[in-house]
Amino acid sequence: MFAPLQNDSFLRACLRQPTDHTPVWLMRQAGRYLPEYRATREKAGSFMGLATNTDFATEVTLQPLERFPLDAAILFSDILTVPDAMGLGLSFQQGEGPKFAQVVRDEAAVAALQVPDLEKLRYVFDAVTSIRRALNGRVPLIGFSGSPWTLACYMVEGGGSDDYRRVKSLMYARPDLMHRILDVNARAVAAYLNAQIEAGAQAVMVFDSWGGVLADGAFQEFSLAYSRQVLAAVKTEHEGVRIPRILFTKGGGLWLDEIADAGADVVGLDWTMSLGKARARVGDRVALQGNLDPNVLFAPPEAVRAQARAVLDSFGPPTPGSGHIFNLGHGISQFTPPESVTALVDEVHSHSRRQRASL
Amino acid sequence: MFAPLQNDSFLRACLRQPTDHTPVWLMRQAGRYLPEYRATREKAGSFMGLATNTDFATEVTLQPLERFPLDAAILFSDILTVPDAMGLGLSFQQGEGPKFAQVVRDEAAVAALQVPDLEKLRYVFDAVTSIRRALNGRVPLIGFSGSPWTLACYMVEGGGSDDYRRVKSLMYARPDLMHRILDVNARAVAAYLNAQIEAGAQAVMVFDSWGGVLADGAFQEFSLAYSRQVLAAVKTEHEGVRIPRILFTKGGGLWLDEIADAGADVVGLDWTMSLGKARARVGDRVALQGNLDPNVLFAPPEAVRAQARAVLDSFGPPTPGSGHIFNLGHGISQFTPPESVTALVDEVHSHSRRQRASL
Repeated sequence: MFAPLQNDSFLRACLRQPTDHTPVWLMRQAGRYLPEYRATREKAGSFMGLATNTDFATEVTLQPLERFPLDAAILFSDILTVPDAMGLGLSFQQGEGPKFAQVVRDEAAVAALQVPDLEKLRYVFDAVTSIRRALNGRVPLIGFSGSPWTLACYMVEGGGSDDYRRVKSLMYARPDLMHRILDVNARAVAAYLNAQIEAGAQAVMVFDSWGGVLADGAFQEFSLAYSRQVLAAVKTEHEGVRIPRILFTKGGGLWLDEIADAGADVVGLDWTMSLGKARARVGDRVALQGNLDPNVLFAPPEAVRAQARAVLDSFGPPTPGSGHIFNLGHGISQFTPPESVTALVDEVHSHSRRQRASL
Repeated sequence: MFAPLQNDSFLRACLRQPTDHTPVWLMRQAGRYLPEYRATREKAGSFMGLATNTDFATEVTLQPLERFPLDAAILFSDILTVPDAMGLGLSFQQGEGPKFAQVVRDEAAVAALQVPDLEKLRYVFDAVTSIRRALNGRVPLIGFSGSPWTLACYMVEGGGSDDYRRVKSLMYARPDLMHRILDVNARAVAAYLNAQIEAGAQAVMVFDSWGGVLADGAFQEFSLAYSRQVLAAVKTEHEGVRIPRILFTKGGGLWLDEIADAGADVVGLDWTMSLGKARARVGDRVALQGNLDPNVLFAPPEAVRAQARAVLDSFGPPTPGSGHIFNLGHGISQFTPPESVTALVDEVHSHSRRQRASL
């Protein structure tokens, strides 16, 4: 059904198999920093217009691959498609973050929540299949979702937040309601990721973007437990091929040991945690993904290259059983000069080849 | 000159001396969640009108002590008074954060920066003396400043930021300019804190509110090194009395070992780090301050009490040479019901007395 894969370095690194270079992709690599993305976005009229149209979603997913020799593609979509399919009404105001028309803050709203009919997410699975075909085996395709906790943050707050007051109030005042939301979310996310895999995704990633705002103890109970539930229910292989699963918790460095035991093949890290220290702590239990500060990309190319080398050197030369996928520690900024990405990808490839040659 | 101190539990805990209960105070305890604060703020006309008027500053500093048996008072002021005195023009828009009229983003602006004439901060020192007198020995008075890095964030960004793009761009592109800003800030902050001590502050705290946004490596070079420079230059005693120095790095848990070696007597922690794990890591090198999530205060009183006990139990019963000051992990929210603070302070006092009785 799909063309054979020509560059499997990303999948191999996820599974801690040897590669001849460190694979690199960037969170939000298909995005506003690219003029060609902005042109397609203009045609689509809105973010959701872009994400729900198979042709547009395919077009923008492939755009960064035309410019940069990235080692993976990631489905163009949003982390919040699942609560949208639950009927909460996702929209994106110009220049603002996501907004839900309905919020989930009381007993009645929580009781009404259900795992959505996956048919409502058909546009995502169609996009996955279309992108996989268009990639034609060039690089693997990553599917994704927000984590149960991160979805809950938006569902309760109704949008972004700088203090998470409403979602944490509910969590501390009515932990029973919060657990019910999270259980519905976990079952929905698992089904959603499995459907992406069936549609053609060759790896999947769970974005726990807001796990790091929780207190120690609360993180384990309300975020990690439900990411673990998702990972336990997501396929580990499809048609005889392993499907790596990535768990990224922004601000999760303090809980690295526990996150590494949650069932993922790969743990994503932000820039606050040294990759070298992380590797020393988790050993070869999981591969690591990350972790350049996206703001490095505002420096001149030579500084970008130096910082890229520092990340690779922090992880250190790959040894049998280890795996590193280079990425940013968070999504690329819309203000990033594309030339910085050119320098970054080139340096990751060339320096990581030199690291291997020196072994 | 000042009345003798009646409740020294806060100072003793900072210096890891035995106390009969765990002292408690709250970051931003004099603030908008109190109707009496809002009334005084109304009279003053603006935030800076409040902070620069000795009588108003004294009045609002004492307000929370009238309601709650807190074990310390903290000067009512802002972390950004130093760059304001450098001539950058600090103001607070209604409902928004701080704004500077001038920003520091290029070589000329950096070259023009100087340690300000401390006379421009006379209003702060006058407030310190006035508050110390008004306290009349009830509890000790804490002085404070933003850290050199945190001040630099606002000076470069011109206000708050959600991505720190401008300050990090400068840091990665022109580390020489960033080091010059930070050196000026460190010298200014040290002189400022010493003048607060001379005016009557009995402890001082450095707020590294934005240290946690830095990458590993950059944190040590651009934030911690300059907090260390400040602490090396701030008096450790005044008129024969020890002056405890507190360093609080929001999001600094991953760097706890290094922060504990920066020269402070007390390390402040946010809620992401378990106090028990932190204590196990730093031993009795420093006292610890923290670390309840301020959002706990939106739960019913019984839940507030249970979470307060969990923080105390995480630190564990005090043993000789250890010190814990109870606090939130960040400033109290303006939406907090004051009754939650009543329950919190009562539970910290009573449960910590029970912990000692059980030893």
